[in-house]
Amino acid sequence: MINPFFKNYGPFDILDILQFLKINYDDIPTNKEEVCDIKDLFSSTKKDITFFHSKKYKEIANKTKASFCITKDSLKNELPKSCIPLIVGNVLVSTSIITSKFYPESIHDNFDNTVVDISKSKFKKKVKFGNNVLLGTNVLIGSNCTIGHNTIIEKNVLVGNNCSIGSNSIIRNTLIGNNVKILDNCNIGKHGFGFFSDKDKNLRYPHIGIVQINDNCEIGCGATIDRGSMSNTVIGKNTFLDNQIHIAHNVKIGENGIIAGQVGIAGSSIIGKNVKIGGQAGISGHLKIGNNVEIAGGSGVIKDLPDNSKVMGYPAKNIRQFLRENK
Amino acid sequence: MINPFFKNYGPFDILDILQFLKINYDDIPTNKEEVCDIKDLFSSTKKDITFFHSKKYKEIANKTKASFCITKDSLKNELPKSCIPLIVGNVLVSTSIITSKFYPESIHDNFDNTVVDISKSKFKKKVKFGNNVLLGTNVLIGSNCTIGHNTIIEKNVLVGNNCSIGSNSIIRNTLIGNNVKILDNCNIGKHGFGFFSDKDKNLRYPHIGIVQINDNCEIGCGATIDRGSMSNTVIGKNTFLDNQIHIAHNVKIGENGIIAGQVGIAGSSIIGKNVKIGGQAGISGHLKIGNNVEIAGGSGVIKDLPDNSKVMGYPAKNIRQFLRENK
Amino acid sequence: MINPFFKNYGPFDILDILQFLKINYDDIPTNKEEVCDIKDLFSSTKKDITFFHSKKYKEIANKTKASFCITKDSLKNELPKSCIPLIVGNVLVSTSIITSKFYPESIHDNFDNTVVDISKSKFKKKVKFGNNVLLGTNVLIGSNCTIGHNTIIEKNVLVGNNCSIGSNSIIRNTLIGNNVKILDNCNIGKHGFGFFSDKDKNLRYPHIGIVQINDNCEIGCGATIDRGSMSNTVIGKNTFLDNQIHIAHNVKIGENGIIAGQVGIAGSSIIGKNVKIGGQAGISGHLKIGNNVEIAGGSGVIKDLPDNSKVMGYPAKNIRQFLRENK
Repeated sequence: MINPFFKNYGPFDILDILQFLKINYDDIPTNKEEVCDIKDLFSSTKKDITFFHSKKYKEIANKTKASFCITKDSLKNELPKSCIPLIVGNVLVSTSIITSKFYPESIHDNFDNTVVDISKSKFKKKVKFGNNVLLGTNVLIGSNCTIGHNTIIEKNVLVGNNCSIGSNSIIRNTLIGNNVKILDNCNIGKHGFGFFSDKDKNLRYPHIGIVQINDNCEIGCGATIDRGSMSNTVIGKNTFLDNQIHIAHNVKIGENGIIAGQVGIAGSSIIGKNVKIGGQAGISGHLKIGNNVEIAGGSGVIKDLPDNSKVMGYPAKNIRQFLRENK
Repeated sequence: MINPFFKNYGPFDILDILQFLKINYDDIPTNKEEVCDIKDLFSSTKKDITFFHSKKYKEIANKTKASFCITKDSLKNELPKSCIPLIVGNVLVSTSIITSKFYPESIHDNFDNTVVDISKSKFKKKVKFGNNVLLGTNVLIGSNCTIGHNTIIEKNVLVGNNCSIGSNSIIRNTLIGNNVKILDNCNIGKHGFGFFSDKDKNLRYPHIGIVQINDNCEIGCGATIDRGSMSNTVIGKNTFLDNQIHIAHNVKIGENGIIAGQVGIAGSSIIGKNVKIGGQAGISGHLKIGNNVEIAGGSGVIKDLPDNSKVMGYPAKNIRQFLRENK
Repeated sequence: MINPFFKNYGPFDILDILQFLKINYDDIPTNKEEVCDIKDLFSSTKKDITFFHSKKYKEIANKTKASFCITKDSLKNELPKSCIPLIVGNVLVSTSIITSKFYPESIHDNFDNTVVDISKSKFKKKVKFGNNVLLGTNVLIGSNCTIGHNTIIEKNVLVGNNCSIGSNSIIRNTLIGNNVKILDNCNIGKHGFGFFSDKDKNLRYPHIGIVQINDNCEIGCGATIDRGSMSNTVIGKNTFLDNQIHIAHNVKIGENGIIAGQVGIAGSSIIGKNVKIGGQAGISGHLKIGNNVEIAGGSGVIKDLPDNSKVMGYPAKNIRQFLRENK
């Protein structure tokens, strides 16, 4: 993923990485290679380190081009010979630690201190703007856009043409298409609610994904759309979100979605196209919701849903069945 | 409805309107009348155009005084002779198009660029105010009011006496009574979540209604109260709303309501007086909830409720029955 | 409770208090004592007035050291001889009235007009801060902290070391520990949703409690955490809250909690340690949730839960039972 938002502090010497992982590196052939990046099994090149934590990825693991792989003893034999396994106690924690080393700025989301008032930027004539609008460095804004009062657009954010952004919104780590409307009080692009819980002090993991909002979308007031951890959070073309909606990290919503107020979609769920979701419905994490699905307001979806499903209730089931059972 | 918020760009020549609707106007007696406004069947005068999309309004349609009516072939005979039917494919879409022609500023809700800092307005001595408070043109504020930091009150908003408005709130297209308290981070008066879905690019419809908040109300932090489309959104006298509540367009809540945190009320529902709604409950659109109704927290109401009902569950049913069935 | 946030306007002459309560004080031995404070039965000293409204507190009432007690006729004999009962029609309303007399600033939460821009405060070098950050009088901020744009920290708030506070947040009446992260658009420390409903004009009751956020917590975007009425609202050490969460007044959450997006916890509920709550779940008021409890997303908890419970559904029940019954 090409990503203008998080600076890669690599390359690192593999010896540094081993030391960081507290691995006894006597057993490992040290060719002193430089490691350029951390990527998933599929996208890695021989200059990268990757990670492999579950058997269900063994077919991709077989073919990875990475030179190093953070993994566990029971999985190491799935890797090709060109890939040196680094055996750790907890693959995801170690991956998180190394990702933080490459992308230290992807963890903490402190406010952007590169911002300047838009009236002192090159956009002062191009954009119609309110009072106290702040733009970070390298922000790009297309033609015919408006930005309301007190809104903050942090560094590297890209806004397309004909976009309208409301007041009191904060946008970071986000790519916005054309004809997009973002209303007031939105928070788009912060890190997700992802961490390893640990007695006394949880360990936050880095979020190097971004938010992508495609053409013709509308995002209602008070939305929180978190950026992805390893992949992106995506709002499909012409999808409309009502007020007070929460979209967690890595969620992908297809085109032409209609999502009513106060809906919440938990991390990593994939929503098809032409999906309608009624107010206050919730969708659990890591689900796959098909195309043309209709979810009644207030429902709680805890299982994958095939194309064209119409569901209601908690747990959500076929709407006719639900209404029959709940006369 | 007399409405200071949206400028009527009429009158328009009926020929222009016909052209806009792409109607072949050879069949229509063109008396070149000017059309002054678009109104509902009941409120129209002979200077207006109206619309008629469903048989259930036929009795009002019979008596409309409008000179023109956007309607469909199957309904045209219900209209009086004085009213010329304009036959279209989709009555509501065409109505939306013509409403947008009269009230183009009711669609997009761009930020108010007429605002000035309150310290430069005539209210600088009358109102107790925080930092960075912005007032639009023609805002009126009563005596003994306070307005917190970073709050934006857009053009034409009326605030009564003894009101307290918090920080970071945005208020537009709203009439506020006396002794009203609006807390922080509220968004009041934006357009509702109303549009005609259309592949590739949804068509937003205009919202020419307003929000009316009556005397002695309290609106909690993070509320979103959308203005009406054709009618108003109304919060009755002495009704208290807790935090993070969403009130959709055209909703009307009676007096003395008590509505707990994170409740959502969908579009056009009418809530009686003395109604209590527990936290996170949801009410579907277009319902009629009677007086003195009690809705338990977390319930989902999908049917009308008569006066004095006490309900719980999803779908909400009699609370005793629900608790008996769910021991 | 030592409380730097609300000024005690006492002492008051007991005759004033009686007059305020509209009590016929001929029957009462007037020793013209000064009353210094209003406290609960347990914490009162002989310089204080207390209140006693329910039989279940009779054992503490027996031993109260207060010189006066607002109570009702049926309870007065439970008080020790040293405590003079003041008989009223509604104990809680009268208590509210007298508390308001001692702490008039605890009712209305008007914006803090003591604030100055941080760049003009003594913290301008110590803290890394954004644009338009406002600090009230007596705010204290530890070392190595960051505060985002447009954030308001009201008077007397204490922030520990290594804290990161986002943009557009408002914090008042709050004590914040070390290593705490508060994200954007939060509202922390306002009064709770507490009032006596009254036809025409509800009577707000004072909230003299505060919010305490302990070390290592994270508070997600758009949180509302209300301060306590008589006790405090507490977020335990290392507890993480996701986005759009509502925590009502007097709630206490133990350490190491993990609370997902859009959860709501109603007033005065006590949550144990190591508790996990899934997205959109709701917890009714005045409940006791044990340690190590897991509550599935979307659940509605309406009863106390013992340690180690795993629940789901509305009303929430054992998760295995729920899933079996809802196949």
